[in-house]
Order: sequence, then structure tokens, then C-alpha cells
Amino acid sequence: MTIAVDAAGGDFFPENPVNGALQALAEDSSLHIMFVGPQQLIEAELENHSFDKLRVKIVDAQETIGMDESPSIAVKSKPNSSISVGLREHKEGNCEAFVSAGNTGALLAASTLILGRLKGVLRPTIATFYPTLKGFRLLVDAGANLEIKPEMALQFAKMGQIYAQQIMGIESPKVGLLNVGEEEEKGTENLKAIHAHLKQLDGFVGNVEGRDIFPAKADVFVTDAVVGNILLKFGESIPSALKHMVKSSVKGGIVAKIQLWAAQKVLRASLAPFNYENVGGLPFLGVNGVSIVGHGGSSAVAVKNMIKSAVNCVNGDINGKIVASLN
Amino acid sequence: MTIAVDAAGGDFFPENPVNGALQALAEDSSLHIMFVGPQQLIEAELENHSFDKLRVKIVDAQETIGMDESPSIAVKSKPNSSISVGLREHKEGNCEAFVSAGNTGALLAASTLILGRLKGVLRPTIATFYPTLKGFRLLVDAGANLEIKPEMALQFAKMGQIYAQQIMGIESPKVGLLNVGEEEEKGTENLKAIHAHLKQLDGFVGNVEGRDIFPAKADVFVTDAVVGNILLKFGESIPSALKHMVKSSVKGGIVAKIQLWAAQKVLRASLAPFNYENVGGLPFLGVNGVSIVGHGGSSAVAVKNMIKSAVNCVNGDINGKIVASLN
Repeated sequence: MTIAVDAAGGDFFPENPVNGALQALAEDSSLHIMFVGPQQLIEAELENHSFDKLRVKIVDAQETIGMDESPSIAVKSKPNSSISVGLREHKEGNCEAFVSAGNTGALLAASTLILGRLKGVLRPTIATFYPTLKGFRLLVDAGANLEIKPEMALQFAKMGQIYAQQIMGIESPKVGLLNVGEEEEKGTENLKAIHAHLKQLDGFVGNVEGRDIFPAKADVFVTDAVVGNILLKFGESIPSALKHMVKSSVKGGIVAKIQLWAAQKVLRASLAPFNYENVGGLPFLGVNGVSIVGHGGSSAVAVKNMIKSAVNCVNGDINGKIVASLN
Repeated sequence: MTIAVDAAGGDFFPENPVNGALQALAEDSSLHIMFVGPQQLIEAELENHSFDKLRVKIVDAQETIGMDESPSIAVKSKPNSSISVGLREHKEGNCEAFVSAGNTGALLAASTLILGRLKGVLRPTIATFYPTLKGFRLLVDAGANLEIKPEMALQFAKMGQIYAQQIMGIESPKVGLLNVGEEEEKGTENLKAIHAHLKQLDGFVGNVEGRDIFPAKADVFVTDAVVGNILLKFGESIPSALKHMVKSSVKGGIVAKIQLWAAQKVLRASLAPFNYENVGGLPFLGVNGVSIVGHGGSSAVAVKNMIKSAVNCVNGDINGKIVASLN
């Protein structure tokens, strides 16, 4: 099993991708790593580490796509970016998956372009993990499709269920449609049509509301990328906002300071479910390959967990199951 | 100044509306209260209290609209509901405002129907208060208009600015359009059109993202009621979810229990900004009158603060300022 790793992706490259990949390599003796990016950069970083050289390969890609570049322009104008080169290696069968902490939009655009869609898939989608009281659950679409149609929503739900079951270990995943009320007749005409279409799905629990996310009333929350992206970024901002709120709520002397210290300690533990480092990257569902993207700020541990996700996707034959489910 | 209070609205009537209104009465000697609802219920509740009888009036309304009733059907089929009777009293000039902790949809429908729109207003809207690190800010639309057009969005922004300035005391309120990215070209075609239209507005700071809500990058967040409602209900669920997370993160003996106790104490203080009791109800902006709705679970204090909000809307001539701004 060879996993290609974008060594020029994210806010901290090449250190974190290289570091994380070498950690994954050390933990899994059957794993091979293909680093994709500027060769001299990768080699310089690798010099700081000792590792099994027989299981590491470098594929040179001199162009890099910045985190803030326009995805479609960047993918077109930089054919030799680490993202495009890595995905072409994957397409040609030289590796089983590609993982990147780089520009999400560029990775999605290049994945769709280079890998193509799985048979029967209308539109690939990106799912995100959302922290709930029961652990992480899936929110789909989280950024790829700003407007969704009933047929797309049904496919997203099915692909999400397969991912939740195979990779997240959730038996019989429940699907909910994010809406403004529980009743069937709630929402826009499009949401009503999506609801009607989702009814044919095993495990559809109907409309769910904003208040149903934390209690995980569904395991797969279906929505469009506008709602998904706003909720995703809002959720990511909760931990730091709370730290601020906690800090500014405590005023006074030594007793208050001790209380604050205890509270901060407990809060840190409580907010662990929000730690995206542990989730191992988000899958693009529906592309003809395994392409996983991580947070731009991914640590080495986050990269390691992305690679593990990729291995699980390959071993679990996620794509075979998606094709079987949709056709 | 007479404020009409729905004595048959919310989850705890007539106790909380009556109690809260009498508290407001005690704190403001120029205030008169008109209770609207089943007369015998109101009289029975009033017997438990001592108050200035000269400043309290009862208007009988035998029908009540339940919290889960379909708004349009309920408003049509129950012409003598406390909501419709109270709003007619307001329309006829017998009171300066109407406040209710009842069915939000029914109150919006009845307010639009009975009070009508202010001159120049395309569609009335409901704003909600959202807790941020700088205190409450406005999110509009929070439930009335599932789909919005550029002209509507501009009016919502202007009405929100007036409310934020006059009632919330925010000087020069900044307006942000909730979107999937900061750049002007982000989002659906409709979001791009709204962005272009909002550019003519003083104080427009451009697109804002989910992560910009807590830091209050804007004072008035403009969005449609799908995003608004999902965010509103998600936000309301944060405090109880956190309490759960905190509780389940602490395991162990007496030291852990003391830490938990301290943490819970600090967390309670930190989450005070999330306490909707203090915000005093949400205004329907754009209707020809002052109509304010509170959370169904409104306490007496929440009802008291709704009445104060109503008084401030009347004294601040919110509607006069809206008409001047739009025409």
C-alpha cells in the first residue's frame, strides 16, 4: 500500500506532512509513502529524520498552490503543482491514495478533473466530521456544492452512510436533512423536494434542526455547501471563543484564579471532541480514487491520521461499495 | 405608554407573562399593561399578586394558538386568538406595542396581516440576537424569509442597523453577509448578487464566514432564514451540550469532583452571554407597529425584558427611522 502525501500543502510544509507521514510509516510496516512536492525541500526535511528508506519515494513537483489561491485558476495554471502531480500518480496506479493539507478547493477541483467521477455519481461531494455528544458525525456537503438537487442529496446521503459505517464504525447510520423545522412541509420548495426524495432511503429520520446536531439525532446530516460551510467554520470557532469567554468571566483574587485554572483544565478535556487533529482529514466522496484533505493548519499527528483514513478507505473498498449502492 | 401582553403565549402561561408584566409595571411607573387572553385565567393569576390596578387592563380572548400549530392555519381559523385580538388592539391604537412568547410563525403571520407593512418595506423580517465575544449582535433573517433577494437583503441590513443602533446601543453598526468565503466572488449567484447590492450600504464590511460570528466581525449578520434558523437553534443548543461535555469529561475521585465543581461554576458565568432571558425578545422589523416575540420557554424576567424592548422601540421611534431610511 502506497499513499502519496502532498509535501507542499498546508500552512506548515514540508515539516508537518513529512513528519506525519514518517510517523505513519513507523506505525504501519506494510505502508509505503510517496512524497510529492519540491524535491530539494523534501530531501532537506528528510535529513532531519531516520526512517526506512526503502519505503519512501519522492516525486518532484516544483509548483505549489497557495492556501488563498483561486482553486480553478490555480489548477489550470499550475499543471505541475504537488496536487496535480500527486493525483496523476494516483490516477496512473502508482499509489493507492493521495492526501493533502493544502487548498481544499484546488484539491476538489483537481480530484474531479484528474480522477473523474465514480460510475453513477452525479457530483462528488466533500463531507466533514462534526463533533457531537456521541463523537464525530458526518455533515455533507461541507464545501463542494453550493446548491443541491434532490438526486444529488440522495447520493450524498448514501455515500455518507457508507463512509460512516465503514470508516467511522457507525452501524446503520441514520440520515437527517438539515431544515428549519421537523415537519415534512417545512423549508423551501427545494428542501421539500429533497425531503420527499430522501424518503426512499433506509435510515432516513426526516428533517433535523440546528439543535439536533450536538445530540447527534442523525449520523449523516445532509445539507448544501452554504449551510455546511458556515456550520463547519462556526463549529471550528467554538473552542477558542469559549476559552475567551471563560477567561473574561473570571475576575478577582487567588480563589477565582484557582477556579479559572481548574475550569480551563476541565474545558480543555471537554473540548477534545472538537480537536480536528484526531479525525484524519475529510474524504472527497464520489471521485474515482481516494483523495483526502486536511485542515490547512494540520499538525504532524493530523497528517498521520489522514494517512490512516486513506488506508482505511482503500482497505474498506469505499468506492466499490459506493458504486454498488448507486447502480 | 400601554404595552399589550399575550397572556396565553409560551410554554408557561398565564404565570410567566403575568408575572413578568407585573415586574415591568413595578419598575416603570409610566407603564400600563393590557393583558390579552382568556379573562378568567388572567384574573385567577392576578389574584396571586398585588399591583396598581389602575394601570392594568384585561382584554378577553378565548382562543389560544398552540406552540406547534401551523401558523397560517391557526391565524385563519382562530380570529379570536390572544395573538390576533392583541394585534387588533394595537392596530386600533389602544396600545403602543404587542409582546408574546407564543408561536413565532403565527405572530409573524398575524403581525403582517393585521398591522401591515411599513411604507416601502418589501417583506417584514425577524431578527435574532446572537451571542458573541462583544455581547449580543443581530442575525437577520432568523426565520421569516427562507429565500431572500438582493433588494430584501438590503432592507434587512438597513432595518437591522437601525435596531442595532437605537436599541442595542451599537454606534455605526457594521453589516456582513454570511457566505462561504470572504472574497466577493464567493457563493451562489444569489449571494453574489446580494453582495453587489449591499455594496451601496454605509457600514457594509463584505462577506463574513461562520468563524466571524463569535468575534463579531459584523454587528448585523445578513442571511436567509434557512441559515439563520439553523444557526439560531444550533447556538441555543451550545450551553447544554457543553454542560454535558464538561460533565462527561471529568472522571475520578474527590480532586476531579472539586475541579468539576469549579469548572461548572466558571462555565455558568462564561455562558451567561448565551442567556436569552436577558435579550428581551426579537422584533419583527418592517411591520407597521411594534410586535415582539420571545422564546416559548420565556421566564417572567424574559417577559419583563421583552416589554422593556417594546418600550424602547416605541420611545426610539424605530419605525419612523426605518421609513425614513427606506424611502
